Amino acid sequence: MVNIQTLKGFRDFLPAEMRKRQYVIASLRKVFESFGFEPLETPALEYEEVLLGKYGDEGDKLMYRFTDNGERRVALRYDQTVPLARVVSQYQNQLPIPFKRYQIQPVWRAENTQKGRFREFLQCDIDTVGLNTAYSDAEILAVVYHSLLSLKFTKFKILINTKPLLFMLMRLSKIPEDKFKVAAIIIDKLDKIGEEAVKQEAITKGVDKTQIDEFFKIANFIQTTYPDSKPFLTEQNTLKGNVVMDALNEHLKPLKEVVRAANNLGIPYEFLVPKFTLARGLDYYTDAIFEVEIEGYEAGSVGGGGRYDNLIGIFAGKEIPAVGFAFGFDRIIEATLQLDLFPKTLTTTQVLVTIFSIELGGESNQIVNKLRHAGVPTELWLDAETKLEKQLKYADSKNIPFVIILGPHEIGSGKVTLKNLRNQTQESLSLDEAISKLTS
Amino acid sequence: MVNIQTLKGFRDFLPAEMRKRQYVIASLRKVFESFGFEPLETPALEYEEVLLGKYGDEGDKLMYRFTDNGERRVALRYDQTVPLARVVSQYQNQLPIPFKRYQIQPVWRAENTQKGRFREFLQCDIDTVGLNTAYSDAEILAVVYHSLLSLKFTKFKILINTKPLLFMLMRLSKIPEDKFKVAAIIIDKLDKIGEEAVKQEAITKGVDKTQIDEFFKIANFIQTTYPDSKPFLTEQNTLKGNVVMDALNEHLKPLKEVVRAANNLGIPYEFLVPKFTLARGLDYYTDAIFEVEIEGYEAGSVGGGGRYDNLIGIFAGKEIPAVGFAFGFDRIIEATLQLDLFPKTLTTTQVLVTIFSIELGGESNQIVNKLRHAGVPTELWLDAETKLEKQLKYADSKNIPFVIILGPHEIGSGKVTLKNLRNQTQESLSLDEAISKLTS
Repeated sequence: MVNIQTLKGFRDFLPAEMRKRQYVIASLRKVFESFGFEPLETPALEYEEVLLGKYGDEGDKLMYRFTDNGERRVALRYDQTVPLARVVSQYQNQLPIPFKRYQIQPVWRAENTQKGRFREFLQCDIDTVGLNTAYSDAEILAVVYHSLLSLKFTKFKILINTKPLLFMLMRLSKIPEDKFKVAAIIIDKLDKIGEEAVKQEAITKGVDKTQIDEFFKIANFIQTTYPDSKPFLTEQNTLKGNVVMDALNEHLKPLKEVVRAANNLGIPYEFLVPKFTLARGLDYYTDAIFEVEIEGYEAGSVGGGGRYDNLIGIFAGKEIPAVGFAFGFDRIIEATLQLDLFPKTLTTTQVLVTIFSIELGGESNQIVNKLRHAGVPTELWLDAETKLEKQLKYADSKNIPFVIILGPHEIGSGKVTLKNLRNQTQESLSLDEAISKLTS
Repeated sequence: MVNIQTLKGFRDFLPAEMRKRQYVIASLRKVFESFGFEPLETPALEYEEVLLGKYGDEGDKLMYRFTDNGERRVALRYDQTVPLARVVSQYQNQLPIPFKRYQIQPVWRAENTQKGRFREFLQCDIDTVGLNTAYSDAEILAVVYHSLLSLKFTKFKILINTKPLLFMLMRLSKIPEDKFKVAAIIIDKLDKIGEEAVKQEAITKGVDKTQIDEFFKIANFIQTTYPDSKPFLTEQNTLKGNVVMDALNEHLKPLKEVVRAANNLGIPYEFLVPKFTLARGLDYYTDAIFEVEIEGYEAGSVGGGGRYDNLIGIFAGKEIPAVGFAFGFDRIIEATLQLDLFPKTLTTTQVLVTIFSIELGGESNQIVNKLRHAGVPTELWLDAETKLEKQLKYADSKNIPFVIILGPHEIGSGKVTLKNLRNQTQESLSLDEAISKLTS
């Protein structure tokens, strides 16, 4: 007996789910393209050596790797950033600089599915390669801002920090340099597990209790001073007269620049929130880091990103600056669903035309052709021997709002019966009248 | 040194190529949905046993199969029909009947790339599951017809035959029953290799020379009688008075029915061409079979399909009728390119706004925001330190048709310089004038 299940962590997307996904993808693509980001796709399989060692030990472990029929060691796409680095290296003379691309493809990771994670999931990335300016950082945020607006989210926060600023806080807290990366990974979990649990985990990982206490003390103090990004506007709000603050001011500058540039690009300040404990787990970020939280959706951030100036050049053998953002596609879907922001109807078909008998099939066809010609997405029932009731049930199961019923009575009178399945009313109309109802 | 090439048979799609693919996908999807076909996606990986043995020995050999990290035997998607069969079985109480779905996803086959084949390529399928009527066959052809029209093809032929009719010709030619499948596979190569080569190959595969001669004699005779589908219209054209023809008439009926239904659905007869040597390589087809040829594109058919009533039910354990069509996506792209039918511009961005200096960056931003607000897809140059010449070159390399130049002179006069990169002209305009030029 064949096992007819899908693999754990892998999903079928039936039409109703697909339509939601297509809606989100179309909304995002439209915004990406309006900013000049262009589409890119890379193969599902790469030489193993292209991907191996690029995502840490964890990545090598979770990667789908195997020997292909030609004895090559290959690996399934694990993210879209390393393939982007390969593309930038392979086609460096062909690509415009900056190379602004978006990429929306599945990736595969052998994750522990008990944590509600999937082994096949869509990634949705935008990246600007080849520039290191505050405006290129800010533009990424502007795309994120307009993407979320286009999906009807109105209350969300773009959290911002920089890696050097985070490390500066650690330095001021006397956390030793060799613990910075470990500490960042632990602090990244703050929203998930809370300050106390972060402290506990930090201690078990060899960070001194007084150091981690000090880190949170400083971070929380600055957070109180800069609860939002408005104080960045005026220089007099720069903190002074305190040794810690003097040291920090220097590191606050790049953060301020990005926030100002983002505001220049049209993002209101209330959406731009400095968050001094923001750490991002991945250690390839070099400067600004971002994360987005939607009010009313508590499962976690719906995307994150930042500047990473040392990764894209790994294959090209030179430093190539880059900044990017990855939307958490499944979380966006979940948040849109939870806040009830999907359009009321995502079905395309407006009307089903019934068929009464083989003899009258030609009449149904003519009506279908006229409806389609008038731009009404129309479905024809395809079996002349089906009872009307079953045809109506089909329309209902597919969420088709209208049915045009065509029997000998209708054909005799030169009219059609237009049935509205939503409110269960029906009326006798000429085809032209029906068309104008369906297109209004 | 890391090998930074893509695997043989795998492709990167850079933006220019992606836009062509997106255009074709969007055109096809629009037509599919206008007929009520709904989107479906299935996982890239399935349990090996779901796919194994479903595509013959060749399929098992070319399939990417491996053991995953959890010691499961898995295989990469090889086509979209077997996954559809799994879906129909797994969700049989949830799906409407007929289940009309389209699916556009990559599949993987370890093909011999020397034949110009790819190992990762997009499949683009429509199938109607759960009905066996002439109209359900005909609707598939109507979708194919409108799909090709939507891509601007005007001269093409939908070739039609049926499997029972093909086998009847073989029977009349005295080809033994146990050679039918082998003969069909060889006859399928007719257009590629010609009648003589087909005969030679048939003989080496154990088909008698007189039998294969007889097959072509009969097939060509009927072809002369029915050079196109118009004779199907009138019963008096039914061939009579010949033992062979009497035997054939019975088998011609289903073919006629599909052609008539297709014509009822709006396909002109000149697009519907009976072809009595049409065989299709795959042996799962049970009735009508189709293939599409585009005039002026000689590389081969751009798609094929047919009715297959025994495959979809394999997992459900019962017979479930189905009919479908698969577009050869890469060939459609190639034919569209070769016949020069892609829209002249597939780039979205209409205008690049230049930036003169950090101080004047705010002015550029304001203009960008106003342009986007007016619905003009606009790109902003992101580095205030770049020379104008380089900014113009960037716009040109991305095929952006217009540039708005903003320097101190323009800002002083309250105007912008609108440069047309296509004809290398420029004029000084107010922003409103520029917007109305860009949106006209």
